[in-house]
Amino acid sequence: MTNLDEMGKKAVTAKYIVQTLSAEEKNAALSAAADGLLADTAAILAANEKDMQAGRENGMHEGLLDRLKLDGARIEAMALGLRQVADLPDPVGKVLEAWERPNGLRLQKVSVPLGVIGIIYESRPNVTADAFALCFKAGNAAILKGGSDAIHSNMAIAASLRKSLKKNGLPEDAVQLIEDTDRETTAAFMKCREYIDVLIPRGSAGLIRATVENSTIPIIETGTGNCHIFIDETADLTDAVNIVVNAKTQRIGVCNACESLVIHEKIAAAFLPALKEGLARVHEVEIRGDRQVCQILPEVKHAAEEDYGTEYLDYILSAVTVKNIEEAIAHINRYSTHHSDAILTQDNSHAQRFTQAIDSACVYVNASTRFTDGFEFGFGAEIGISTQKLHARGPMGLPQLTTYKYIVEGNGQVR
Amino acid sequence: MTNLDEMGKKAVTAKYIVQTLSAEEKNAALSAAADGLLADTAAILAANEKDMQAGRENGMHEGLLDRLKLDGARIEAMALGLRQVADLPDPVGKVLEAWERPNGLRLQKVSVPLGVIGIIYESRPNVTADAFALCFKAGNAAILKGGSDAIHSNMAIAASLRKSLKKNGLPEDAVQLIEDTDRETTAAFMKCREYIDVLIPRGSAGLIRATVENSTIPIIETGTGNCHIFIDETADLTDAVNIVVNAKTQRIGVCNACESLVIHEKIAAAFLPALKEGLARVHEVEIRGDRQVCQILPEVKHAAEEDYGTEYLDYILSAVTVKNIEEAIAHINRYSTHHSDAILTQDNSHAQRFTQAIDSACVYVNASTRFTDGFEFGFGAEIGISTQKLHARGPMGLPQLTTYKYIVEGNGQVR
Repeated sequence: MTNLDEMGKKAVTAKYIVQTLSAEEKNAALSAAADGLLADTAAILAANEKDMQAGRENGMHEGLLDRLKLDGARIEAMALGLRQVADLPDPVGKVLEAWERPNGLRLQKVSVPLGVIGIIYESRPNVTADAFALCFKAGNAAILKGGSDAIHSNMAIAASLRKSLKKNGLPEDAVQLIEDTDRETTAAFMKCREYIDVLIPRGSAGLIRATVENSTIPIIETGTGNCHIFIDETADLTDAVNIVVNAKTQRIGVCNACESLVIHEKIAAAFLPALKEGLARVHEVEIRGDRQVCQILPEVKHAAEEDYGTEYLDYILSAVTVKNIEEAIAHINRYSTHHSDAILTQDNSHAQRFTQAIDSACVYVNASTRFTDGFEFGFGAEIGISTQKLHARGPMGLPQLTTYKYIVEGNGQVR
Repeated sequence: MTNLDEMGKKAVTAKYIVQTLSAEEKNAALSAAADGLLADTAAILAANEKDMQAGRENGMHEGLLDRLKLDGARIEAMALGLRQVADLPDPVGKVLEAWERPNGLRLQKVSVPLGVIGIIYESRPNVTADAFALCFKAGNAAILKGGSDAIHSNMAIAASLRKSLKKNGLPEDAVQLIEDTDRETTAAFMKCREYIDVLIPRGSAGLIRATVENSTIPIIETGTGNCHIFIDETADLTDAVNIVVNAKTQRIGVCNACESLVIHEKIAAAFLPALKEGLARVHEVEIRGDRQVCQILPEVKHAAEEDYGTEYLDYILSAVTVKNIEEAIAHINRYSTHHSDAILTQDNSHAQRFTQAIDSACVYVNASTRFTDGFEFGFGAEIGISTQKLHARGPMGLPQLTTYKYIVEGNGQVR
């Protein structure tokens, strides 16, 4: 069984070194790690083949097998990812504020690494390299816990990264992978409060719930997105159809896809048939609606109460009509997971009221919810999308993997 | 038994109103609440007398009775506290960043209230008014859970605040007090994740530990301070004695008091006798030291390993000698609670190395650790001092009671 205590101590030793590295040192290490991944392609592919074989034997779904699979091109993409993180600005050591007190004390609020970051993830093995790169560039040590399906791939990738760090004279424990993937180890990992400063779960709603309920380490919750689009009375019909079709169908399995429509009753009769046509051109989508929606589109199923709270991640869309913007806001604040919600309107006062009142990380006016993403926001990276309110909200890039400290300089001041 | 579910729902209803109030509306309400407290002085004092009587009957310690006691002057101070919060700048609605993407999307990162804040506290009844004022000014609804000792006082203060809110046409549920003070209610409160966005425990190490272990709501840990002062080889002796005497004795029961000295071995023989003299002029302080400290001051007791990790909150000080700054840094990072630690030195490169390497919320150069405080930092308020790294670190003022949202405006953009 994994000795988490020992891993924790090693991570703490490593963090004190990583936090003092200059941007140049970190970038050189990331570039060397990218070269290392390419050089280790054969070993990584061999390990991946073990996971693929086990997956096939266990009857793994075709889609999941595809997520698990590595090939030369995917390893090149991983290496490129490391180089892209090296190219991003260093988030550490920024003076965020500076001021002086009447007693002469000089205060600075300076960005510093979080310390040791724990990440629990499922599925894709490339997260092993991505998560390391982002944590490391922000000056942190990382302890990673991937899924059992990808364990051989993850071990090979982590071994390659550690070898590159060591070759560069840097602590290999800046990245450690937990090799036991059983539940007991995961549960114990969530209690390693003494060593780990922050725990980030990335994956299914079940994983995130388990982390929230069991972790004693401060966590950043990511992911679940029951995203709404409100089609206001004055919405431009062409734009509205385009945006909803895009937000629903461009990629169904992602947290920023649209799951629920809220439609002003005065525009419903014009909008719904146009939407139906628009969707039909792209992909069949099942709509589950309230009474008015069903009257306008007779083939639509009646929505049950729980439909409004469901993140389908599928070609399904719930739809409800409302009398006015206040009803729309109340519905969305009630059923949203507070990830991303949009209003489509030509009325500026409605846009303003909506963006103020909706209690979500990202609130859109006349655009698709699919833009909630670190790259689309221009952050150049993304470790996840936070749906909680503490520390970071929405897409998290490098600055969200730092905290701050106050440096207070005096010349003998006492109280 | 308290219906926490109902209280949670009421708080959520209230938060959607409070978050939209203008600075003027909030300030007027705080000023009215201050007037209300003064008008209700007789009722509050009568309630407080019940708590005092119960305290006396239960053999409560004189110091605790003094913390519990209210009188006309203390109620005036509470009212003044509300007016001071009204005078602070509104932290809500600030555009923290704004930028445009190549596709024309315009993004704004805007400060918004956290929502519903839960606060668990012990001791002083004035926290009921203070905590309400800070949460409210930052646009939040608050659910407060005070200690059983002060329950009648807290109920009278909360009733007065709610009455004032209602009179002003504002939701009285912007502040709610949990009247049951048993452990089951507290435990259930820590699980009210559906309604409460953040939970802040304020009080003893035991309360904070229980919250960390049991809460499923994101928390901000406050308080514990095992603060160190490192007296470097080049420290100015007069300043060093002044600063240590101040940090140890000016107020012993607070989290920013100094609990442990780390002394460069080359200055120990000059510094320790001077410190002994300096302390003797103010108050008797028991020193527990390592071998070298005991050789220099023969009356000093030998420190046990656990002394270095202890927050005494008493006239006791541990002391250890080190060969160099690296040993000092390693000792402090090992035993500190990462609250406030200081270096006294005339060597700029040492000051720089220390402030970079020490992993604490506040790192001082040539000043007393006692300055870690929202008022001393110039924030004009303080809800607590965070010793965690997520969201807020060090003294927390009004901006730390907000989060942010992204407002994204487009004209039909899709991915």
